Amino acid sequence: MSSPLLYVGLDVGGTTMKAVVVDDHGKAARSATMPTEAFKGQEHGLNQMCATIRKAIAAAGKTEKDIAGIGVATPGTMDIPNGIVLDPPNLKPWQNVPVRDHVHKAFGIPTAFQNDANAAAFGEYWVGAGKVAKSMVMFTLGTGIGGGVIINNLVLEGQHSHGAEVGHMKIDLGKNRRCGCGRWGCLEAFASATSVVKRAQEAVANLTGPSILRDLLKATDEELPAKVVFQAADQGDEVAKKLVLDTAYYLAVGAMNMMHLIDPDMIVYAGGMTAAGDPFLNQIKHYIKELAFPVPAEKTIVRYAKLGNDAGMIGAAACARQLVMKMSGTP
Amino acid sequence: MSSPLLYVGLDVGGTTMKAVVVDDHGKAARSATMPTEAFKGQEHGLNQMCATIRKAIAAAGKTEKDIAGIGVATPGTMDIPNGIVLDPPNLKPWQNVPVRDHVHKAFGIPTAFQNDANAAAFGEYWVGAGKVAKSMVMFTLGTGIGGGVIINNLVLEGQHSHGAEVGHMKIDLGKNRRCGCGRWGCLEAFASATSVVKRAQEAVANLTGPSILRDLLKATDEELPAKVVFQAADQGDEVAKKLVLDTAYYLAVGAMNMMHLIDPDMIVYAGGMTAAGDPFLNQIKHYIKELAFPVPAEKTIVRYAKLGNDAGMIGAAACARQLVMKMSGTP
Repeated sequence: MSSPLLYVGLDVGGTTMKAVVVDDHGKAARSATMPTEAFKGQEHGLNQMCATIRKAIAAAGKTEKDIAGIGVATPGTMDIPNGIVLDPPNLKPWQNVPVRDHVHKAFGIPTAFQNDANAAAFGEYWVGAGKVAKSMVMFTLGTGIGGGVIINNLVLEGQHSHGAEVGHMKIDLGKNRRCGCGRWGCLEAFASATSVVKRAQEAVANLTGPSILRDLLKATDEELPAKVVFQAADQGDEVAKKLVLDTAYYLAVGAMNMMHLIDPDMIVYAGGMTAAGDPFLNQIKHYIKELAFPVPAEKTIVRYAKLGNDAGMIGAAACARQLVMKMSGTP
Repeated sequence: MSSPLLYVGLDVGGTTMKAVVVDDHGKAARSATMPTEAFKGQEHGLNQMCATIRKAIAAAGKTEKDIAGIGVATPGTMDIPNGIVLDPPNLKPWQNVPVRDHVHKAFGIPTAFQNDANAAAFGEYWVGAGKVAKSMVMFTLGTGIGGGVIINNLVLEGQHSHGAEVGHMKIDLGKNRRCGCGRWGCLEAFASATSVVKRAQEAVANLTGPSILRDLLKATDEELPAKVVFQAADQGDEVAKKLVLDTAYYLAVGAMNMMHLIDPDMIVYAGGMTAAGDPFLNQIKHYIKELAFPVPAEKTIVRYAKLGNDAGMIGAAACARQLVMKMSGTP
């Protein structure tokens, strides 16, 4: 083949969708963005997907015939092998949307489909934080806790497209923390940004006397002011420091469990909460060493993700690349 | 090839080692047993391994040249890729024993090496309870809780030979139950036979009045009388019934976590505690349906293992078969 292989990765989010052309080494061109406008219905959504893909191809200065494969990543419940979004809470009123077939028919190019959290993990594994890893577990720390597991270049999708729901491992038997999913004791109920804020609000509710944390929480207009808890800790607020330490501990419990079950050579944290920087990562690492079996505790690399919000679309392109390689018989 | 391929599987235990010749369809010949006698040192142990393998070949009416591959499964900490038993607590004073290389040199036949719990899971996956599964998680319920994870015909060894340590996932943040491994809140600390007995002893210690459970516990001379707790429950003892139900619940938490992380199409329970029979399995299933996400809760098959104590050696043979197939380029 004379020209280098190119792939398009599309990441469909609740608000916007983003696409980018990526070459065979993971080098990304300029990306394209369009509003998702899920409320306009799924036909409109499918058209937006194709439009975003075309926009990305144009942004890269290429034409459709330059593209070897397309990968689409979406959120919500899905049937990955059949390329269908089932009932996505962030894309209402979509239901049973045949994403992969639609995109495949529109472009006539091999089209891969993946869960957005899995795709983001695969992107980091391909050209981001996990580039040197053989197997990798990623935790994405946001409103909830998502994640992905890659083992020897394979995305752990699970038999019912429920693999790597790392936020919903149960880490506590008590009924102290209820998860957004309705269950008790999920990792997400203890360590998501939502949980950090909730625990902070509980902590300041019972405080008398001055409190940096309470003042910062009151002054902020952020919808999910987890950042403010980390700020208060940085400013020496003892309550906030304890909240941050607890969060690091809960995340280390999640990491320990993955180290004892999957035993990857790398654990990666992504998402908004990683803005807390290296001190927070070091606290997580400290607790991991305390909790896990000695050999994985010593040898597993623990780090932050590198691709930021681009991980999903780059990972979607990686899925396209893997599909094309598989179709051409490349191992 | 004119004659059918045959493999030897050897399962090394703390007390005895067992080997058997298995054909390409998993059909096992008569097995051979020898004492492990770890106390006599590792040289002796390695010789016993070779002797047991020879005995199994003779028991099958075959000669060494009929055998295409050998698989050896051992307990304890190990380096699976290098075929070394490191520091096995049940095989003292063995240390850094090059099991695979020794057996390979002794017979000059392709030799595979695997953790015994992983091998048992692979045996069940090949020709036992998991024969119809694409991916399978096994929990072996004994003194501790071991396990194995098989995904699309691959044993999840982990990058540091610590994969599938399912007994050591942390399911509770409190300091209520300490595990044999020294950690708090491991699944094993709540649901192993050892834990059942411990919880039973705690429960009867505070009882006044008549108690079937206390009477049975006193009358038994079993070293680990978990069976007696299930018997007392069968006889209507309310305290024992609660203990059994709690155990089923803890096991369901472990299953739920694996369903949310690995999402296999089958969960298999093996080991001594499965003697409790179908009522206990149904209790576990009941709680799994209550705990897990709806789709895996509905679709994941949950059942008992079928191969009993033969799973390890048959699984070791399965590892040998996989190695031979890989060497011959069979996918």
